Amino acid sequence: MEQLSKQRPASDEPRPPVSRRTVVGSVTAATAATLVGATRFADRAVAADGGPALPPSAGSGGPDEALARDLARMMLLVGKDEREDLKLSYLRILIDEKPLPRARRKKVLIVGAGVAGLAAAHLLKRAGHEVVVIEANASRVGGRIKTFRGVFHDRSLHAEAGAMRLPDFHPLVLALADKLGLKRRPFYNADVAPGAKPTGAVPPVVYRSFTGETWSNGDQAGTFTAPAAVMRTRIAVNGTHTSRAAYAKSPRAVNDTFGTDLDTTVAEAVTRAFARTTVPDGPIGDQLAAWARIFQRYDGHSTHRFLVEEAGWDLARIQAAGTLENMSSRLHYSILPTLIDHAVISPTNRYWELEGGTDTLTEALARPLRNDLRLGRRMTRLVQSDSGVRIETVGESGGEESCDGAPNTPVETFEGDYALVTIPFSALRFCSIEPLMSYPKRRAVTELHYDSATKVLLEFKSRFWEKGPDGFTGGGCVSDSPSRFTYFPSHAPDGSPGGVVLASYTWSDDAMRWDSLTEGERYAFALNDMERLFGPVVRSEFTGAGATQSWARARYALGEAAIFTPGQLHEHHPATRTVEGRVHFAGEHTSLKPAWIEGSLESAVRAVLELHPR
Amino acid sequence: MEQLSKQRPASDEPRPPVSRRTVVGSVTAATAATLVGATRFADRAVAADGGPALPPSAGSGGPDEALARDLARMMLLVGKDEREDLKLSYLRILIDEKPLPRARRKKVLIVGAGVAGLAAAHLLKRAGHEVVVIEANASRVGGRIKTFRGVFHDRSLHAEAGAMRLPDFHPLVLALADKLGLKRRPFYNADVAPGAKPTGAVPPVVYRSFTGETWSNGDQAGTFTAPAAVMRTRIAVNGTHTSRAAYAKSPRAVNDTFGTDLDTTVAEAVTRAFARTTVPDGPIGDQLAAWARIFQRYDGHSTHRFLVEEAGWDLARIQAAGTLENMSSRLHYSILPTLIDHAVISPTNRYWELEGGTDTLTEALARPLRNDLRLGRRMTRLVQSDSGVRIETVGESGGEESCDGAPNTPVETFEGDYALVTIPFSALRFCSIEPLMSYPKRRAVTELHYDSATKVLLEFKSRFWEKGPDGFTGGGCVSDSPSRFTYFPSHAPDGSPGGVVLASYTWSDDAMRWDSLTEGERYAFALNDMERLFGPVVRSEFTGAGATQSWARARYALGEAAIFTPGQLHEHHPATRTVEGRVHFAGEHTSLKPAWIEGSLESAVRAVLELHPR
Repeated sequence: MEQLSKQRPASDEPRPPVSRRTVVGSVTAATAATLVGATRFADRAVAADGGPALPPSAGSGGPDEALARDLARMMLLVGKDEREDLKLSYLRILIDEKPLPRARRKKVLIVGAGVAGLAAAHLLKRAGHEVVVIEANASRVGGRIKTFRGVFHDRSLHAEAGAMRLPDFHPLVLALADKLGLKRRPFYNADVAPGAKPTGAVPPVVYRSFTGETWSNGDQAGTFTAPAAVMRTRIAVNGTHTSRAAYAKSPRAVNDTFGTDLDTTVAEAVTRAFARTTVPDGPIGDQLAAWARIFQRYDGHSTHRFLVEEAGWDLARIQAAGTLENMSSRLHYSILPTLIDHAVISPTNRYWELEGGTDTLTEALARPLRNDLRLGRRMTRLVQSDSGVRIETVGESGGEESCDGAPNTPVETFEGDYALVTIPFSALRFCSIEPLMSYPKRRAVTELHYDSATKVLLEFKSRFWEKGPDGFTGGGCVSDSPSRFTYFPSHAPDGSPGGVVLASYTWSDDAMRWDSLTEGERYAFALNDMERLFGPVVRSEFTGAGATQSWARARYALGEAAIFTPGQLHEHHPATRTVEGRVHFAGEHTSLKPAWIEGSLESAVRAVLELHPR
Repeated sequence: MEQLSKQRPASDEPRPPVSRRTVVGSVTAATAATLVGATRFADRAVAADGGPALPPSAGSGGPDEALARDLARMMLLVGKDEREDLKLSYLRILIDEKPLPRARRKKVLIVGAGVAGLAAAHLLKRAGHEVVVIEANASRVGGRIKTFRGVFHDRSLHAEAGAMRLPDFHPLVLALADKLGLKRRPFYNADVAPGAKPTGAVPPVVYRSFTGETWSNGDQAGTFTAPAAVMRTRIAVNGTHTSRAAYAKSPRAVNDTFGTDLDTTVAEAVTRAFARTTVPDGPIGDQLAAWARIFQRYDGHSTHRFLVEEAGWDLARIQAAGTLENMSSRLHYSILPTLIDHAVISPTNRYWELEGGTDTLTEALARPLRNDLRLGRRMTRLVQSDSGVRIETVGESGGEESCDGAPNTPVETFEGDYALVTIPFSALRFCSIEPLMSYPKRRAVTELHYDSATKVLLEFKSRFWEKGPDGFTGGGCVSDSPSRFTYFPSHAPDGSPGGVVLASYTWSDDAMRWDSLTEGERYAFALNDMERLFGPVVRSEFTGAGATQSWARARYALGEAAIFTPGQLHEHHPATRTVEGRVHFAGEHTSLKPAWIEGSLESAVRAVLELHPR
């Protein structure tokens, strides 16, 4: 098998001196998370990264090579000239409120009040434009940012239906939360000692660009230290039961139950499998070339194919990693989203959560837009002409699940100069857009795959998992029960003895298996599975209250997020963001950080930069 | 690229003289549909085709090769000794009522009253056993055979929510329908002249085995002739509009809109792409070897990968075939189900429908079982011991969609000597089975992929599509609208001026896009799409009545049918049918004709042959 690392970039462009582009959540070296990608920042008028990537005009090879390099640019947020660090530009615009050049005042119809739509509305208003944000959901903004509150017996508890953790390699969202005055605290991806607390003040967001520049929203000095992981969360597979620490120490006992003689943890094996696709730090041109080669080479590879053909894994190892590292249900998806995530995620990453719940972010964004929001209006038709756009909507008054939708109220029409569509393509498929959009866009709207994801949350009177010598706070257990992954709260409100456990968090086919169950059944099954992990205490401590969210069944989301099947990165991604006449596009699916708030925010700034100067 | 046809089988077993195994729906040569696969029939005690295929004991190569040959046997219905024609055995047992050897009387708990469970119950009772058929659905039997009736304004009309066509290469289901006295008539997969009728009597089912034997359920003489296809159904893609006949004559006009210069129809291109995987008639050993090679070579291939790497297709051609031949939404699934189907499906195939609706088949099977059926009892737990099985159930009284499920009534327990589980693995995932089943079975239950499929049916006062020079009966239109495929009734009840159109039939991601819509919205969108095909007449002729079925959302089905993602044929199929102690398995997902009634029937006979002699 050919090693990517043996390949040399074909590019002969001048290579500037570069530094690693990093986002640092604290000043300790151990928590510095290296971001793949790097760029030079040219301090000049900000240009948008929009427009069709096809046909390519740059690149030293055929169209595929040029397209792959365009995609690498989009992922690494490198400007078209391969000089500008778009992430740095976006931070300066979104957070520092760097003024945009003067432009004609426009009326912009924004479709969807998720984080992309809200952030774009915020920026467009600040730039002097009039906005109307049209949101189908009659009861809330936020889209796939949704916090359950007021549904548990202990009214001080809340829990996340959607986005729940903010990685420290996502500076836009962290800095936006800070700017909006929202308090953040660590989200323990790995469990810590019961009730352990960090010391020191929450550090500012620090972003180090390849340009040598450093962006930060505060003083970098500080001594923030998060508690160490204790790895007491459980692994319960194939009838065995152990802790993550015991597994890390003696991986064979668990691995054997899958029939593999692997003598490391499967997480380590996954890291080794992906080693050949690791892009080392270096000049931005080299990094773009390396990612372009990865994209070209593996665009047609499913995760299954990659593990079999590139990593040389046998079935037993695929099954072990599939179960323990949550890969089984997504084996038929493209390997590229996994490689992209793997490039930035490491055990030293830190994650944050917003103290009041993730929806405090979208609520804070929506507050100054309250006169610009139209809730409960669902777009059915968008007609554009040379002079403007017209959007027809119907009224929505039912719940968020389709089965209890109420009859639609009469059509209400909105008119504007431009439209910015931020809703998922799964929802856009049922909107009539006239005249026809471009062929690549239509294909992307029809075919872009959306994943299923389902959560089942249960409230407990006490945090029994924190008790005893095996107790822990935060982190997650894994099992081969239908629940699959069980996450525990990193924090509890002062004085609250209880907590809400994310008893089951599943994706793809694992999630679809849950989606036919009634709400009550989901709680019953999740409780059964928790009993297998913790014994009968779960029954005596269950308050009887829960909350559950199927994103595949959510009427306005129709899926958790976009995720590519093999071939879709090249086939559909560029078209997700192309401008169609007077209609622009944003949302996580138009970014190369799909499913992340960061991607939505990137897309919002990008779309505003495209729209503003028109 | 290596041509499969250049490979020679490694097997050096003696090769008997063989003939093609064919199922002939009539005596005209043009309608003789060649079945892939062939076998020798040894007229001796019938043996089951069950038991674990892993680890293999036969085969001249490594385990993969032996496993692939086992899978080929399972698909071609060749006995373990590679001598017996299992299809012929199954016909003699199910249809001819060939007695099974005497065996101890047993009480068998059958879980699921779909066609597999009902057929197995029928056979087990006939063999002297006691059966109890436990069905979760409180209101009907049939599973994914479901006919909408009594829901349209014209009470004489019915329409299919599930299985709607019986191919003439499926002798078990056709002969079973005949045996039960159900009338069948042609289902026009391709449209015919308006109101055209076949001439002559419906021909008997004829099955020609490789053994040289011919099985039939009647006199083969006859002059049945079906009307010829006229190909007036529409193709409406990329803003263009034409007929299938015009497309066949000048494929370029449509192909150009996809950016491909292909100068044949995409259907012809698909046939050429699959040519290398065509298994020619020949000795059964050669056929098994050829299929085993196909399985080994392409198990890891998605349809997308096959078309790119094996057929050398570019993106434009994949997109054209994807849209016109309904491949887009399944591109990430394994190529093998497509190759298996393609091997038996040809333009000369004939399809049948049951005059009274497909559910007359399951209703007729259920009638003599009325005292053995327990409707509205859903299995939650199955416990087996050395002496028997115990099944716990809860009561069900809600609808078939999960969102309106009613609270479960108290547990009712059933006891028996053995169990036969026929429910989809997607549903079985939430049943507690104790003790743990085998590791491969558990993985199959967890991971076997189930496809989405959604139908939207609309009733019209008149059959306006039959009017005028472009009029037609039956067949289907294709478009790139959300509706994608629109099928027209092949027949109307005497005196009824109207008809029910399957306005939208979608799979996979295409179907998921529909699933969040309310019933009323589905009708509205399907009507919109039909208006694009036929103009405003659809609005004046729509009666306001419709019916819709999402199989992904169906509470007891959780999917249309099992379909492999890459790797799953080898990884999971053998385990679908392995016996777990006293628990046996049947259902379409345990056959290699998943999604077809024929596969369910094959599985039922197989399972009975395994269970009966114990």
